[in-house]
Amino acid sequence: MRHMTDVERRLAALEERLAQLEEEKAVARLISSYGPLVDSGSADAAAALWEPDGVYDVEELVMTGRDEIAGMVRSDTHQGWITGGAAHFVGPPHVTVTGDEAVAVGYSLMILRQGDGFEVRRATANHWRLRRGPDGWRVTARTARVLDGRPQARELLAEGIMP
Amino acid sequence: MRHMTDVERRLAALEERLAQLEEEKAVARLISSYGPLVDSGSADAAAALWEPDGVYDVEELVMTGRDEIAGMVRSDTHQGWITGGAAHFVGPPHVTVTGDEAVAVGYSLMILRQGDGFEVRRATANHWRLRRGPDGWRVTARTARVLDGRPQARELLAEGIMP
Amino acid sequence: MRHMTDVERRLAALEERLAQLEEEKAVARLISSYGPLVDSGSADAAAALWEPDGVYDVEELVMTGRDEIAGMVRSDTHQGWITGGAAHFVGPPHVTVTGDEAVAVGYSLMILRQGDGFEVRRATANHWRLRRGPDGWRVTARTARVLDGRPQARELLAEGIMP
Repeated sequence: MRHMTDVERRLAALEERLAQLEEEKAVARLISSYGPLVDSGSADAAAALWEPDGVYDVEELVMTGRDEIAGMVRSDTHQGWITGGAAHFVGPPHVTVTGDEAVAVGYSLMILRQGDGFEVRRATANHWRLRRGPDGWRVTARTARVLDGRPQARELLAEGIMP
Repeated sequence: MRHMTDVERRLAALEERLAQLEEEKAVARLISSYGPLVDSGSADAAAALWEPDGVYDVEELVMTGRDEIAGMVRSDTHQGWITGGAAHFVGPPHVTVTGDEAVAVGYSLMILRQGDGFEVRRATANHWRLRRGPDGWRVTARTARVLDGRPQARELLAEGIMP
Repeated sequence: MRHMTDVERRLAALEERLAQLEEEKAVARLISSYGPLVDSGSADAAAALWEPDGVYDVEELVMTGRDEIAGMVRSDTHQGWITGGAAHFVGPPHVTVTGDEAVAVGYSLMILRQGDGFEVRRATANHWRLRRGPDGWRVTARTARVLDGRPQARELLAEGIMP
């Protein structure tokens, strides 16, 4: 009986540690789907990464809820980018999962076709807040600030790593 | 005896979940080796990422089998790039492992030295199919399409995320 | 008793495999914090990624110890970049963990604001050596070489993948 308790303790520890890795993986995987979804014009699937009332704040535009996020993907501006040639290239995020909440921070580049090559139109700092619910992880708030020297972008990066 | 069954059930569940994470990691790790191998001119090692009859389809060139892939790395064009200064910068892939098969989708940038800086020559959508055999994961087919606005590149991205 | 031995063997195998994934994750996570820390000007936190006597060798500058690394972040050159707009965009590393030692290899881009867009100033090959101590993983040596065609950069990439 003493021995079984030890086995059960080890099982419980393994289950907890494994779940932690699985959740971190799930958050990173969700983030890695953003670029392919918006660059393919998959408006509803991109919007569904957010919670129904999730926020996507890119400063000049604050989208609240999935309809507004899908609307951005369907907008003439976005459609012009992807039919002209665009890559929303999202780097590997730094992910911190705490129970059913997560914070991730990372970079994204908007790369557009220009002549016979491509140009980096924007380099952006991204701070993601996510929550795990019955359907898995969803974004509650993504805040993006162009890395053009503004202090807000630098603060987003620092805050995501050292909350 | 009843109790042991529970322990065994938990062990089996852990083993299965852990294996899933390990395989996803292995696929991402293989993909992360592509850039360093081709940029260092390691032609045979790059080709060995593919199955012996694997396909690497970059539209203007469809390579079948390791000899043709190694030949691309050894070609004057590729050697000119890497001796002039080149980075095949591959982003974090979105990986889906189903048993011994896997699909991954992601971006790659071909970045070339230009003057005293660098230019993004190509931004590309990549769709990888992989299979696990006795020697681990190997690529069966990688399809790459430049994100220059062509619908095929956008379809590759969507298909890799929502198969 | 025979049966318990089997359970314990499975537990030990799970613990070892899980620890391997956790350590690989920890190394990749540390590397993913480098960009946000230097781009936010978090000099001491960036330097603390290294061991007290760790080395950061970027060829034209070899920094030894945390004071010199923090000094680089506080330098006029670096401050000029981040107040003008800069992204140290670090790609997903290829990580190999062997006990308490790790090697990682990958790319980084230094992207600077230029006019109303951004330019890729440098594309760099990075070879990281790390060690695990009582406070977790720390960098013992990071060697970075610009991918401008020099053989050393290509050798770094190959050596990191096929040590």
